[in-house]
Amino acid sequence: MTTRRELVARLAAICGAPNVVWRREDLLVYEYDGTIERKQPYAVVFPADASETAAVVRLCNELGMPVTPRGAGTGLSGGSVPTRRGVVIGTSRMRRILEIDPANRIAVVEPGLPNIQLSEAAAAHGLFYAPDPSSQKACTIGGNVAENAGGPHCLALGVTQNHVLGLEVVTAGGDITWLGGRVPDAFGYDLRGAFIGSEGTLGIVTKVVCRLVPLPASVVTLLAIFDTVQEASATVSAIIAAGMIPAAMEMMDRLTLQAAEAGLRCGYPADAGAVLLLELDGLPEVVGPQAASARAECLERGATEVREARSAGERELLWKGRKGAIGALGWIAPNYYILDGVVPRSKLVDVMASVSAISDAHGLQCANVFHAGDGNLHPLILFDERVPGAKDRVLAAGAEIMRACVEAGGSLSGEHGIGYEKQRFMPWLYSETDLEHMGRIRAVFGNEGDFNPCKLLPAGTGCGEMAHQEQALRAAGPDAYV
Amino acid sequence: MTTRRELVARLAAICGAPNVVWRREDLLVYEYDGTIERKQPYAVVFPADASETAAVVRLCNELGMPVTPRGAGTGLSGGSVPTRRGVVIGTSRMRRILEIDPANRIAVVEPGLPNIQLSEAAAAHGLFYAPDPSSQKACTIGGNVAENAGGPHCLALGVTQNHVLGLEVVTAGGDITWLGGRVPDAFGYDLRGAFIGSEGTLGIVTKVVCRLVPLPASVVTLLAIFDTVQEASATVSAIIAAGMIPAAMEMMDRLTLQAAEAGLRCGYPADAGAVLLLELDGLPEVVGPQAASARAECLERGATEVREARSAGERELLWKGRKGAIGALGWIAPNYYILDGVVPRSKLVDVMASVSAISDAHGLQCANVFHAGDGNLHPLILFDERVPGAKDRVLAAGAEIMRACVEAGGSLSGEHGIGYEKQRFMPWLYSETDLEHMGRIRAVFGNEGDFNPCKLLPAGTGCGEMAHQEQALRAAGPDAYV
Repeated sequence: MTTRRELVARLAAICGAPNVVWRREDLLVYEYDGTIERKQPYAVVFPADASETAAVVRLCNELGMPVTPRGAGTGLSGGSVPTRRGVVIGTSRMRRILEIDPANRIAVVEPGLPNIQLSEAAAAHGLFYAPDPSSQKACTIGGNVAENAGGPHCLALGVTQNHVLGLEVVTAGGDITWLGGRVPDAFGYDLRGAFIGSEGTLGIVTKVVCRLVPLPASVVTLLAIFDTVQEASATVSAIIAAGMIPAAMEMMDRLTLQAAEAGLRCGYPADAGAVLLLELDGLPEVVGPQAASARAECLERGATEVREARSAGERELLWKGRKGAIGALGWIAPNYYILDGVVPRSKLVDVMASVSAISDAHGLQCANVFHAGDGNLHPLILFDERVPGAKDRVLAAGAEIMRACVEAGGSLSGEHGIGYEKQRFMPWLYSETDLEHMGRIRAVFGNEGDFNPCKLLPAGTGCGEMAHQEQALRAAGPDAYV
Repeated sequence: MTTRRELVARLAAICGAPNVVWRREDLLVYEYDGTIERKQPYAVVFPADASETAAVVRLCNELGMPVTPRGAGTGLSGGSVPTRRGVVIGTSRMRRILEIDPANRIAVVEPGLPNIQLSEAAAAHGLFYAPDPSSQKACTIGGNVAENAGGPHCLALGVTQNHVLGLEVVTAGGDITWLGGRVPDAFGYDLRGAFIGSEGTLGIVTKVVCRLVPLPASVVTLLAIFDTVQEASATVSAIIAAGMIPAAMEMMDRLTLQAAEAGLRCGYPADAGAVLLLELDGLPEVVGPQAASARAECLERGATEVREARSAGERELLWKGRKGAIGALGWIAPNYYILDGVVPRSKLVDVMASVSAISDAHGLQCANVFHAGDGNLHPLILFDERVPGAKDRVLAAGAEIMRACVEAGGSLSGEHGIGYEKQRFMPWLYSETDLEHMGRIRAVFGNEGDFNPCKLLPAGTGCGEMAHQEQALRAAGPDAYV
């Protein structure tokens, strides 16, 4: 048995007392992320570098203390919620850009760097970092690595997996090691790839080698307005079938448009059934004709209007609505539960109809804002957690929607991860043998069950013990734990 | 102790007697690949599907018999050479295209399918499979997965890792499991990614879900002729810096050109110091201006002439020389040793100078034909293995060249893998901790040391026992082994 006081003292000895947070009121902001799960850690610690991080991990392993890594806490599947309490390791002191190498188009950054700051710094060299989650002003590159984050501009360019060449990591076992390097397609076992998207269960990234890509010579942003989600969905397939891969192709439905307009005043048509936000980029000679044919596809499939951003300001306004849409839904209901499913593009129309039927059957409002080109759906179920039974109905509807995605040949996550909430759905897609193989990779990185426990894989990770442990804790008094 | 007769009988019981090869004269063609290593297996077996493959793997595990998977045997790092004898599992009976789904742009194929046949079948839908190794007429999709194969057209589109969404595999432990699926960016641990490029040490792929991409609307193929490799190398960087990513950008030096011209009569200028074979593709409105600026970059950096293919026939002829160049070097010397290093593009000029200096110092002829845009070098050292000491000098020069790549911040393989020959260089790039983490992934897939042994990772895999085992075999008579 270790007391919280002893734990804090030992963490302070590694990172310095000002870099350990342990008072209950200070811990409040570290008990949640973007999901509806909450749990307070015993302490949060902020190491300065890989070697302090490794020392913290080794200390926690010695004490049998669960460890949960945390970036900016913007995650949407509970990955940074300390489900079994223990110690949260925050990366916010490791936030430097260590190097930008324009000739080889790479940058080396620390994990706590907010995503957008990399693109801002790279712009001086005519380059940018492609993955752009909607939370990019806050979310960190390290968190993006953990969740294999996507974003609107990943349709043409691919998600984090395609833009991170190498990682320095502190493994769950407390070793410092490099995965991948500074050139693409490193030979050998691609542990870099296995680490990206591992949702903080294999270790903590302490340096990231990012690919940078050239800023496009020209950009056209279109807003196509439809009466129905079905027409907009069919247009997505038609544009891809016509041989275009837009830089982005985002859909928002009526409820989302109403919320975005109410909250953000970005000029969206609040009476439309759906809009497609389309972006085409490249050389002006290409983008012009492509924009014309994209516009024609939209109109042919029922668009009532296709607007084009006439200036950088207008373009920013259109994107402001999309990037702020999810937050804006707070204007409509106090809580929402955001889902993240993927379906083959050809099933988009059918699955969108199922999403709508399922929400109706449960008497729930559901907004949709998503990466249509990738078939990556984000139904947001709106509710008020103070209404008795509301959360249960939301979770039931969410499960049915995820089931519909899987039955259409899709998958359980496009970019937000499995985290805590979707573990129980894993057997829909994976056999016991599959899951066993996945589970074994934790041992490769020295995770014996206490490193970001209860995430990603169903059961077997001792989460059932959580309640028991807490009872013991309460019995032992406010300053002790087992 | 099992006799060869017993082994063959048990393999035949699984796959049928006609699908087991075991006579010494029949085994001759399975003892080598594209490297200079050779070793004869005890038997080669050709399963019809995943379930037969799994039964063979389980039998071999039961007998403690090494297993080596084999596609077409075109590999260039010894991956399919049965270094510790045992059983070779060939995939040539699993060669069907099971499905082409043009709407979602995927194909499901069996591992023994020759690479080019997938693009030929997809062409009917206006699609193709991007990775195109020079050996694409022979090499298999399964072998491509094992080696994470590249090819000239991977500069813009990426290597196998970017074009395989899902795999059905028989693991080294004998389980059948799926890694990834039919949609991109599957969540969870990316074991698909870890398996691709694992060089046949984790299992055998039995089904592959491939991404297909649209055939370009137009293509321009240019041949730029230079007096020196240095000028051609500098041009590569200049073209990328100008914001273009050609579909392909291949370099050939004087010796390669002479061989290609002597063997293939494809119209290459045999007196040039180097050529760049450049391909630009996309919409005609883009490709035209791009080709003009690529031509200008070449001329500005010393090209004496830039030819453009005027017809599909001329284009094919230019590529015939590139794709056949390595074979054509057989006209100059009876043996060659092909290296595969990667350097940051900005170091291309320096490292090419080192390659030349190293070959000169060892009194060896060295030809260069490579994916210049990726910084992926392929120096070919020419020699005659009948000359005493020649092979040793070649291996020494090869090691020095690989060292030069690593010292320039590069890596040990761009697309051919580490295999048998480059294991000993791994510690130049990886610490013991790094290698230990890599080694642990074998256990994830149930490889306890006998599944494609002596490949990829240095030492620790019991290859030293090989000689001992063979001595015991000889003592026990021609039909027995230990």
